[in-house]
Amino acid sequence: MAEITSQANRLRVVESSTNPLIKVFRRALAEGTTRDGWLAVEGPLLVEEALRAGERVTVQSVLVSEDGVRRSQPLLARLPKACEVTQTPDRLFRQIAQTETPQGIAALVELHATKLEAVLGVRDALLLVACGLQDPGNLGTILRSAQAFGASALIRLAATVSPFNPKATRASAGAVFHVPVLMGERAESLFPRLRAAGVRVVGADRHSPARISDADLRGRLAILIGQEAAGLPAELARQADMLVSIPIRAGMDSLNAATAASVVLYEVARQRGFRY
Amino acid sequence: MAEITSQANRLRVVESSTNPLIKVFRRALAEGTTRDGWLAVEGPLLVEEALRAGERVTVQSVLVSEDGVRRSQPLLARLPKACEVTQTPDRLFRQIAQTETPQGIAALVELHATKLEAVLGVRDALLLVACGLQDPGNLGTILRSAQAFGASALIRLAATVSPFNPKATRASAGAVFHVPVLMGERAESLFPRLRAAGVRVVGADRHSPARISDADLRGRLAILIGQEAAGLPAELARQADMLVSIPIRAGMDSLNAATAASVVLYEVARQRGFRY
Repeated sequence: MAEITSQANRLRVVESSTNPLIKVFRRALAEGTTRDGWLAVEGPLLVEEALRAGERVTVQSVLVSEDGVRRSQPLLARLPKACEVTQTPDRLFRQIAQTETPQGIAALVELHATKLEAVLGVRDALLLVACGLQDPGNLGTILRSAQAFGASALIRLAATVSPFNPKATRASAGAVFHVPVLMGERAESLFPRLRAAGVRVVGADRHSPARISDADLRGRLAILIGQEAAGLPAELARQADMLVSIPIRAGMDSLNAATAASVVLYEVARQRGFRY
Repeated sequence: MAEITSQANRLRVVESSTNPLIKVFRRALAEGTTRDGWLAVEGPLLVEEALRAGERVTVQSVLVSEDGVRRSQPLLARLPKACEVTQTPDRLFRQIAQTETPQGIAALVELHATKLEAVLGVRDALLLVACGLQDPGNLGTILRSAQAFGASALIRLAATVSPFNPKATRASAGAVFHVPVLMGERAESLFPRLRAAGVRVVGADRHSPARISDADLRGRLAILIGQEAAGLPAELARQADMLVSIPIRAGMDSLNAATAASVVLYEVARQRGFRY
């Protein structure tokens, strides 16, 4: 077997499919998280993004195949000292991997919780509130755009798919590590707190006659994004200070949900002069 | 069996899985098109969009399950007289269907070819040139945005996934029937003809320092959209009169490819006052 050159990390070799850690990785890669809520990710790109994300994120455990040790040497050398590194035969890694062409590295990553207060304290806060999205690919793509266009956080309300679903994590291309995600907020308490903090609430509603390009989207803002087919639920639309729509060609029902959210985020960023 | 109330269409009943028409549907739904190039689509939404699309599109043949006959009665009544309608048992329809929860209706749809000359004749023509996209879902989503933001046509260059791939068609949500798609163009002949017609060529290139929001995107325009990972191939970027980028947060590589194309289309539509 190839050896890890970094001396910083304890290296274990595990060859049995019934090893408890192998079981934890297998289950977490399929479901998205461990029972403790650590995110499970696969491939050097996502592990790299986790390492780049700084304080909010701790890479706790890395599993590499023999092939992965050879391919990801520089990445392994950059792991934090406390990170547990386990090497496993290529055959066993392929059994655990969820991707079609496994790249020989997977990790369990702890995302430290962000509090709403911390996010509300950000100057020109730009919050995205996911209100019922069902497709994990859409939510992941929205996270990627949220990072790109300078959003401060994504707030997930109930009935929204988990951003830690494996498909969402992959579609986010690592943004899940960079954009704080608030999982446990409830509408009843969220909106009063947004108002108290002076955050305007803007709902993206395809039926609104007000064009996003005419609305003033500068300053502290929370943007409500509805469900793919049904759009924004009426009880949440009522909480908005303003409803805006993207002007599209007549006779068309809607854009793709991730596209719509991304266009709104772009318009906000444009009005703010792309200052991130 | 339920009966089709519309008397306009000949109704055949087919119960054998070896019937030639059943074989044609089975193969076409899996591959996207028949050997003659007719598009195969499933579900009432896509059949509805095909019927709404007008002259460019002819619904040639419809296959309904017994359940589909009951559920899609108003849709069936609106089929053109020349359309062949075939009823088949629910069990056989489920075997042919590609969707997880089949909705009992499928169709073979002829898209009449559009010539580049016809598209170049459009006032304020807005052409999208797909230069190597690999993901059918991305291409379908781009078609949906192209329809929404008033694009005149999508031109597919070689090495780009087919917009008639079943995943692309589904992601387009019917836009594949509304936006003319030019399949057989070659870069060597396309660019001289665009120039001769006074169409400016704009390349979306993430490395360009020129922001899309600062560029003048009014007037006759062709926008080049590159591949997911690699972006715009250098030999095509050289053909552009101007390269523009979407300003995103530093340290990020890119947006999702469909998101990026959609944001560019939105910016064009915004500068043109959303006149479609």
